[in-house]
Amino acid sequence: MTASSELLSKYQQLMEKFKNIVIFQSAVSVLHWDMETKMPPKGIVLRSQQMALLSQIGHKMMTDPEIGKLIDEIMKHPEYESLNQIQKRNVYLIKKEYDEQTALPEKLVVETARQRTITTDVWKKAKAAKNFSMFKPELEKLFELRKEAAEILMDVKKTPTPYDALIDIFEPKMTSEMITRIFNKLRDGLTSLIEKCLSSPIKPDTSFLKRRIPIDTQRKIAVELARFIGYDVESKEAGGRIDETEHPFTTGYYHDVRITTHYYEDNWSSAVFSVLHEGGHALYEQNLPAEWIYQPVGTACSSGFHESQSRFVENVVGRSREFWTYFLPKLNALTGNAFADIDLDTFVRGVNEVKPSKIRVEADEVTYCLHIIIRFEIERDLFAGKIAVEELPQVWNEKYEKYLGVKIENDSEGVMQDTHWASGLFGYFPSYALGNIYSGQLLAKMQKDIPDWKTQLAEGNFKQIKQWLIKNVHSYGNLYDPADLIRIITGEEIDVEHYFRYLNEKYARLYGF
Amino acid sequence: MTASSELLSKYQQLMEKFKNIVIFQSAVSVLHWDMETKMPPKGIVLRSQQMALLSQIGHKMMTDPEIGKLIDEIMKHPEYESLNQIQKRNVYLIKKEYDEQTALPEKLVVETARQRTITTDVWKKAKAAKNFSMFKPELEKLFELRKEAAEILMDVKKTPTPYDALIDIFEPKMTSEMITRIFNKLRDGLTSLIEKCLSSPIKPDTSFLKRRIPIDTQRKIAVELARFIGYDVESKEAGGRIDETEHPFTTGYYHDVRITTHYYEDNWSSAVFSVLHEGGHALYEQNLPAEWIYQPVGTACSSGFHESQSRFVENVVGRSREFWTYFLPKLNALTGNAFADIDLDTFVRGVNEVKPSKIRVEADEVTYCLHIIIRFEIERDLFAGKIAVEELPQVWNEKYEKYLGVKIENDSEGVMQDTHWASGLFGYFPSYALGNIYSGQLLAKMQKDIPDWKTQLAEGNFKQIKQWLIKNVHSYGNLYDPADLIRIITGEEIDVEHYFRYLNEKYARLYGF
Repeated sequence: MTASSELLSKYQQLMEKFKNIVIFQSAVSVLHWDMETKMPPKGIVLRSQQMALLSQIGHKMMTDPEIGKLIDEIMKHPEYESLNQIQKRNVYLIKKEYDEQTALPEKLVVETARQRTITTDVWKKAKAAKNFSMFKPELEKLFELRKEAAEILMDVKKTPTPYDALIDIFEPKMTSEMITRIFNKLRDGLTSLIEKCLSSPIKPDTSFLKRRIPIDTQRKIAVELARFIGYDVESKEAGGRIDETEHPFTTGYYHDVRITTHYYEDNWSSAVFSVLHEGGHALYEQNLPAEWIYQPVGTACSSGFHESQSRFVENVVGRSREFWTYFLPKLNALTGNAFADIDLDTFVRGVNEVKPSKIRVEADEVTYCLHIIIRFEIERDLFAGKIAVEELPQVWNEKYEKYLGVKIENDSEGVMQDTHWASGLFGYFPSYALGNIYSGQLLAKMQKDIPDWKTQLAEGNFKQIKQWLIKNVHSYGNLYDPADLIRIITGEEIDVEHYFRYLNEKYARLYGF
Repeated sequence: MTASSELLSKYQQLMEKFKNIVIFQSAVSVLHWDMETKMPPKGIVLRSQQMALLSQIGHKMMTDPEIGKLIDEIMKHPEYESLNQIQKRNVYLIKKEYDEQTALPEKLVVETARQRTITTDVWKKAKAAKNFSMFKPELEKLFELRKEAAEILMDVKKTPTPYDALIDIFEPKMTSEMITRIFNKLRDGLTSLIEKCLSSPIKPDTSFLKRRIPIDTQRKIAVELARFIGYDVESKEAGGRIDETEHPFTTGYYHDVRITTHYYEDNWSSAVFSVLHEGGHALYEQNLPAEWIYQPVGTACSSGFHESQSRFVENVVGRSREFWTYFLPKLNALTGNAFADIDLDTFVRGVNEVKPSKIRVEADEVTYCLHIIIRFEIERDLFAGKIAVEELPQVWNEKYEKYLGVKIENDSEGVMQDTHWASGLFGYFPSYALGNIYSGQLLAKMQKDIPDWKTQLAEGNFKQIKQWLIKNVHSYGNLYDPADLIRIITGEEIDVEHYFRYLNEKYARLYGF
């Protein structure tokens, strides 16, 4: 056996082990989906035990000393440099995961998995009861567990703070210091844009957004939107689903990708935009390079990049005049002409109304990032020990008043509105705003490559735009860290300017300034 | 540490290990449910990999040498006899499973799990295409794998034949020789009863069974039936679900039990009886003793006993005059009086029409067991090497002509109608007929304990009957092998006489002989 075939054999062994981990985790994600969508309520205790056990098994698989040994042998091999870029990236990503998982005690991992399901379950009940004190003790337990993990991971990853170690899970190599800098600029720009919009004499008519559309009709609209973006949920060979949960999400892997949405009879546009949003996520997962399946490179680049895809499809595409030029007649056909009296301009202004509000997922594009900035600042201060879990409602309400000028009446429309903290996803929120920023940069590049993209969209043709996203984003998988990927795609570092330009141009037209 | 606390500590360790196995397997069953009900079609390749990997992990858990060591230490312990009956039964059942699993090579287990998903998938396509030759190669592979397992298990279990080793999985200690003896008697009795029914001048009117009932209405009927038997699928604390698959089944454990059914617009009664059938299974699972959860005793006694519960609820209850006395007005209320012109006698005759037919799951009570006998004889001869997989269609069609006098036109309505062989469930089919036989014995006993059970049923009161089933069947869990359990409940060995008496009395009244 020559040295290089010996190296390749070790690499193959490593990849075989990782393949099993990927297959295992994809099974776990089906159980998570089931828990959110289909599980009988009484099943929660058994499910939390299943999730804890499976996370223990998954942890064991990922911390298998054989993996560490293979990584070591590969990286120290005299011919290591003969591996190609993809192979090296795979080894790098497995090593990163291995080092992190190995540092976390199994007991902590299992306890966290169990607490996640419990906290999520209690959160649902507490939210329905508008009762933060019911939620608090379980959130505290989960926060302590995540804090313990963050402190361990900080040492492994050499991040400046524990919170940075959590951010790195979702946005590799990003730090809270960089985010603070970016977000401060973002906040200033948005605040000034919001003022322009609010002081405009143009007041969008949004009354048509309250027209009652039967749930069954909304389900048909959702399928039509999925068809438009090319997310297949209908055919006998479909690779996707649309289900219903209070909080929309996307899960899945390659050929089994699932999005959820919610349908409110008196707020039909909520489902429209959440289907487009989750559909953007789904397209990313479904269009990762087929040949990279089961490999670390065959995953998305980062949560920020994932959100760039969802926010691009939801907003850049889905809230554009051009999209509605095509889709408004369709919407009328599906709803028995429910909007026949609304002209295109009124419609587009209505679905883009800028209005500071309480609920993140219902926020318009211009105020949206302020919701994120609030959450980021709270997380950062929580992990720095500057505030405690019990102070969350107060801090939340104060920031909403200060940044958005809205008064929170109860914690269900306040600090308990999102599922993230209940699921232990501290460090995720910045991804949404980073995604918006990336989406602005991607748009600027796409406009150069497809000058007539708006005309295409107005004709109901999403194909070339989708191909552009696949070629420029999805096809890279996880070959680069996000800071590198945005540079490779656009030639520029992360920068809010393109996003500001997009927003300013769009809202200047809508609000006439 | 005293010896007996040392013994108990080892017992606890063993039970802890088994608890994890139960939790793990309950998670796997959710993935199986998902595969059948919700998975996007393209997900099948990934799912078959998941199932194979999980069966490998499950196999590893069950064959953990530590389990063997604990069993050994417990059984050889000088104070072993101080364990109570439940503890001894738990050790016995774990040892049985451990010995069997340990005998099966991991490679065979994994390969079988993979082949199961593939064969099931191909079966669906082949059935739709009415093409047995498409199904044949994958069925052959699965059969060879099961045969290999059967031969290994025969040695471990000391059964007379390999096929007996498979029967023992579903009906412990039952043999094909005993089944042959029971089934021969069964066949003779049924054949003579069928002749009496068919030669009666009374010809049931079944035209109302073809009346078109919208699927949505049928879903409401299903929920109403679930409510009647006390299978909770509605409340905020529900422990069950009803979903839709071509082939109805029940899966789940204690607080997360799921049944499926199918709805045909022009055959509404199919859903009615399949919901009652699966509901009978579901009640068994939901009413196993709560204190035995995660223990081997906290499972059903056998597949035959499981079918006794489903067939009891479907037929003894669900096809009785008394049930329809109560439910026909409800059915009319739910269907906008679709059956207002059908009197009770006509209705009850219609849903009990005796008519030799091609499809097992649509068969009436009297001809049903002949479908089972055919399948049993074919399995027995297949494993004895007397027939080959490629001969199945021919043998099948000949037996249907001979036993039931019906001519099979294509293999979709013939040998490919059931999912069992495609899922590798060789040895299961006898359970259905054994279940019918047990149900007759249980009925005879229940009639003594609740003389007015029919009056209760006619008043829409299923509670005492359900409690009787819980007390006399469910509450025993898996404390006894089936031959012992039927003796404990009824004081008698397995015996077709009670079932014959039930059928003869019922059909003599319906057909006036």
